[in-house]
Amino acid sequence: MKLDQIANEIAAEIEADAKAVENAADAKTPGLTPGPFGMAIAMVDGSLIRAGSSETFPIQSISKVFALSLALEKLGDTVFERVGREPSGDPFNSVIDLERTQGIPRNPFVNAGALVVVDILVEQFGDNARGVVLDLVKGGIKDATSKAAVMLDPEVLNEGGDLNRAMLHFMAHHDNVCSPVDAIMDTYARQCAVSVDCVGLAQAGCYLADTRIAANAANDRAKRMRTTLALMMTCGHYDGSGDFAVRVGLPAKSGVGGGILAIAPGIASIAVWSPNLDQHGNSMLGVRALEMLNARTGWSVFGPPVG
Amino acid sequence: MKLDQIANEIAAEIEADAKAVENAADAKTPGLTPGPFGMAIAMVDGSLIRAGSSETFPIQSISKVFALSLALEKLGDTVFERVGREPSGDPFNSVIDLERTQGIPRNPFVNAGALVVVDILVEQFGDNARGVVLDLVKGGIKDATSKAAVMLDPEVLNEGGDLNRAMLHFMAHHDNVCSPVDAIMDTYARQCAVSVDCVGLAQAGCYLADTRIAANAANDRAKRMRTTLALMMTCGHYDGSGDFAVRVGLPAKSGVGGGILAIAPGIASIAVWSPNLDQHGNSMLGVRALEMLNARTGWSVFGPPVG
Amino acid sequence: MKLDQIANEIAAEIEADAKAVENAADAKTPGLTPGPFGMAIAMVDGSLIRAGSSETFPIQSISKVFALSLALEKLGDTVFERVGREPSGDPFNSVIDLERTQGIPRNPFVNAGALVVVDILVEQFGDNARGVVLDLVKGGIKDATSKAAVMLDPEVLNEGGDLNRAMLHFMAHHDNVCSPVDAIMDTYARQCAVSVDCVGLAQAGCYLADTRIAANAANDRAKRMRTTLALMMTCGHYDGSGDFAVRVGLPAKSGVGGGILAIAPGIASIAVWSPNLDQHGNSMLGVRALEMLNARTGWSVFGPPVG
Amino acid sequence: MKLDQIANEIAAEIEADAKAVENAADAKTPGLTPGPFGMAIAMVDGSLIRAGSSETFPIQSISKVFALSLALEKLGDTVFERVGREPSGDPFNSVIDLERTQGIPRNPFVNAGALVVVDILVEQFGDNARGVVLDLVKGGIKDATSKAAVMLDPEVLNEGGDLNRAMLHFMAHHDNVCSPVDAIMDTYARQCAVSVDCVGLAQAGCYLADTRIAANAANDRAKRMRTTLALMMTCGHYDGSGDFAVRVGLPAKSGVGGGILAIAPGIASIAVWSPNLDQHGNSMLGVRALEMLNARTGWSVFGPPVG
Repeated sequence: MKLDQIANEIAAEIEADAKAVENAADAKTPGLTPGPFGMAIAMVDGSLIRAGSSETFPIQSISKVFALSLALEKLGDTVFERVGREPSGDPFNSVIDLERTQGIPRNPFVNAGALVVVDILVEQFGDNARGVVLDLVKGGIKDATSKAAVMLDPEVLNEGGDLNRAMLHFMAHHDNVCSPVDAIMDTYARQCAVSVDCVGLAQAGCYLADTRIAANAANDRAKRMRTTLALMMTCGHYDGSGDFAVRVGLPAKSGVGGGILAIAPGIASIAVWSPNLDQHGNSMLGVRALEMLNARTGWSVFGPPVG
Repeated sequence: MKLDQIANEIAAEIEADAKAVENAADAKTPGLTPGPFGMAIAMVDGSLIRAGSSETFPIQSISKVFALSLALEKLGDTVFERVGREPSGDPFNSVIDLERTQGIPRNPFVNAGALVVVDILVEQFGDNARGVVLDLVKGGIKDATSKAAVMLDPEVLNEGGDLNRAMLHFMAHHDNVCSPVDAIMDTYARQCAVSVDCVGLAQAGCYLADTRIAANAANDRAKRMRTTLALMMTCGHYDGSGDFAVRVGLPAKSGVGGGILAIAPGIASIAVWSPNLDQHGNSMLGVRALEMLNARTGWSVFGPPVG
Repeated sequence: MKLDQIANEIAAEIEADAKAVENAADAKTPGLTPGPFGMAIAMVDGSLIRAGSSETFPIQSISKVFALSLALEKLGDTVFERVGREPSGDPFNSVIDLERTQGIPRNPFVNAGALVVVDILVEQFGDNARGVVLDLVKGGIKDATSKAAVMLDPEVLNEGGDLNRAMLHFMAHHDNVCSPVDAIMDTYARQCAVSVDCVGLAQAGCYLADTRIAANAANDRAKRMRTTLALMMTCGHYDGSGDFAVRVGLPAKSGVGGGILAIAPGIASIAVWSPNLDQHGNSMLGVRALEMLNARTGWSVFGPPVG
Repeated sequence: MKLDQIANEIAAEIEADAKAVENAADAKTPGLTPGPFGMAIAMVDGSLIRAGSSETFPIQSISKVFALSLALEKLGDTVFERVGREPSGDPFNSVIDLERTQGIPRNPFVNAGALVVVDILVEQFGDNARGVVLDLVKGGIKDATSKAAVMLDPEVLNEGGDLNRAMLHFMAHHDNVCSPVDAIMDTYARQCAVSVDCVGLAQAGCYLADTRIAANAANDRAKRMRTTLALMMTCGHYDGSGDFAVRVGLPAKSGVGGGILAIAPGIASIAVWSPNLDQHGNSMLGVRALEMLNARTGWSVFGPPVG
């Protein structure tokens, strides 16, 4: 079956299935209408498949992947002197881990770790740090309509952040924060607020799928991509990362805006979106759609595609 | 370059490098002589590459992978009603996690989780449970010399186990243990004591590398393999799993006997062995050799091989 | 008002109040009938006040006080090389603390600490350890009827003990257990099973109220009593110790049999009993009665009696 | 022996002993010169005993006792809807507890709890909150020289406070902070900075020693004092509270300025000071002096005075 047929089938089944999903045991807010669903697949060869809604949504925590890419490009593995690379077994906003590790966040995808990465961006880019993730996302989008739709979500820009401030001050106490707390909070809010549609997200993330290594070459870029994918695989879904690895088998990162970016290395970048979340903060229908995609294509880092 | 040349080069470099490794910052016991090193690669096509030592060693925690395979074959995903599938962020022998999760171990590769898997084997196989991992390992080995060398390490059989007993009683308190503690301890000791050489381990684990999915088929076996690999990827090295995923990029499981079994899905099963351990309990030279292999072959779930 | 009048008034009010208590917000099992209530006060001058029920009940964790007295008499403060003397902020049966403190229980009144004290008794008294708490309790009772009523509760003797076994094996792993686990479990069960009525408990505990210090004397005995009272004050009610200190103001120890032993130093030993427990495992009506006694007599270590 | 003789003897012995103390095993910074030592005893009858140094020092955490008194006077036991009254078993600055208890600090003497109490003072006193502890302390001092010596320590006023800010933002996230973080930080800094000599501290705290209860009276004041003493007893020294209760037997509160305020209910208020701290943050020589005082006078809540 062709990939665009598969995508359309998934979108149709998801919609038909919506009523059943409404009261799913793993729903964060049982009884909610599942709402819209969108999906896009950007193949590494440049082709594009889309299905379902083309609404935009804030990327929220998916921005942590783009920010990490920028930090790794600037500093290489020295980034990991200030943030770990282990799954934590704790929810995304735990401060317990920070106390255990003396202010070194467990990985770049828990909130504390993402804030350290933002601190690095502020150090490296100065005032321009406020726009670097927006620029990276926008720069990767080929589709003109999707590119034009990129914006900063005003609600996300104005969200309170007592918990993030708490973690920043805690890390400052342990000398792991360099820039002023307000500057970091502002830059972080702006990267979380970046809003795209599924086509935009898939195309923006497609650079991560190119991990080819050439013989006798430095391959620094490919190694950075593989590092990022390894962290998405082990730490991308907080205390739901192991479950996601079993069910979907692809490195991915979710955001509370309902989006998920998944990477099939060497093949494609996949974006799904649906606003209702499960208890871990992942899009319920999004995870379900990725599971269907895995089942029909065999796309998984743990084996070859179907065929 | 041919794969057997690569393997021999790695073994030679490891040996030459040994002196440098002796006092490595991550050594558990700095100053120890690195000792012998062995390596074997069992390709899915049946061919075999070997380099370095052919000593035997107890597989210890690597047995948890074989035991999980047997439990999944019997019970399917219902195994995960009694043991989780999330990385824990804690060392292999933490009881803290057990208290947080009310007696449900975080995953099948921390000790508590492995003991629950053994409890399942005792339920399913009765007295025969004592030999099922040994049989599975022996049955997978094609090389006659390696097959003949398989034995049970007498020291491992007689190791004390106060910590494991503590965890079993704790889980029994939470109704997550069915068989008598002594029976579980005995079966667990016997599977940890299984001793092989690198060729034996690579061939015994090669079934995990076959994860092909056929269109329009049930594919239960392939799905079980992918589930096992996903857990090896996210949880295989305790609180060093994220680091290993970045450095080596392959699902793998280590044991305190100094062995590591790594799987390149669809390609090969790799066994390395060297007795000196780092602070996480992984073979120092073993990890280093796998990193070298990754660098020269590009074998990693996060991208295609070099070429 | 005379003390016997006060005691009778309290018993009468408790009974009248029982209906109101039934559904108290802090009840462990709301809706239970509060059941019987008993109280006895053994004055240091030898006089005795009693009110309410004279049923017997197993002393359970109150036995930890008697066991500690015996261990301190044998070994003095070296007991505290194997068990701490800090409140834990955790429930009585937490294993988390044990992992944090590497097998040294936080204090002698959490279960793990009580088991170490029993281990000391087994070392010091050999087989006789099985009877030492029973002998101490029986020896302190002057009232002939109460002395004759002392027995070992058969249900308590036969209770399972997976959690206690878990903690013993965990501490054995950290070299803080000397005797066989079964011997410790048996001795511990026998001391928990000692059953008395309120008069018996008050008289048995009265030795703790004599804490006078003479000038120019060694005062070892008085110092041991003060040490025991200090630990009852700070650690006697697990994670409800601070609340109890505020409400009652006396060193005390409760048991899940519904009894509480409280000491007014230099004045009296008080026993109350009522079987329904609050969420911390303390007798609801027992705590209420001690609060009433405090209010009417002013007995509290934080100030002089009323008058 | 007369009390002033006892005090002078203790001061003399402490000084003679200083060399031995220098390298004590429990010293936070072994090898430091023990430095000066001061002591004062304010009897409830108004008489005053003093010995050793009359230097001033910032009261630091001892201010938490005065602040709690003021909050209890305004709000009574409703204070405990926002802060617990249990010992924590953790160091004074742990954020782990806050996560476990969803933003309700364990007790008013850990830093987080003290900050909630300050938040209450800011709510109740508005701008005047900045001076209320200073006023309470100054108002209690009878000795003219000591009263004149009261000041705000400029260094303490200017100390950074990332950890306290972290805890305030964390509690704000859990809706347990009402006033602006900056106002709370400022008020807290000012109460910690209050500097007195030992005579001043003993006289300022003497109101806590008056806990008499009259028959047929409301006794609200006495009950508040007893509540405060109960919390000093169980929580006054963080994770060293049980040890202090055993060694000294009096409700007390220490500060990192080297001062300790201890209360012998109905008898006296005692202040000691010496700047070198043990690992729990308590004055080494201060605790030692209080232990000596206990041994010679028998002053302890767990028994009558010597005689």
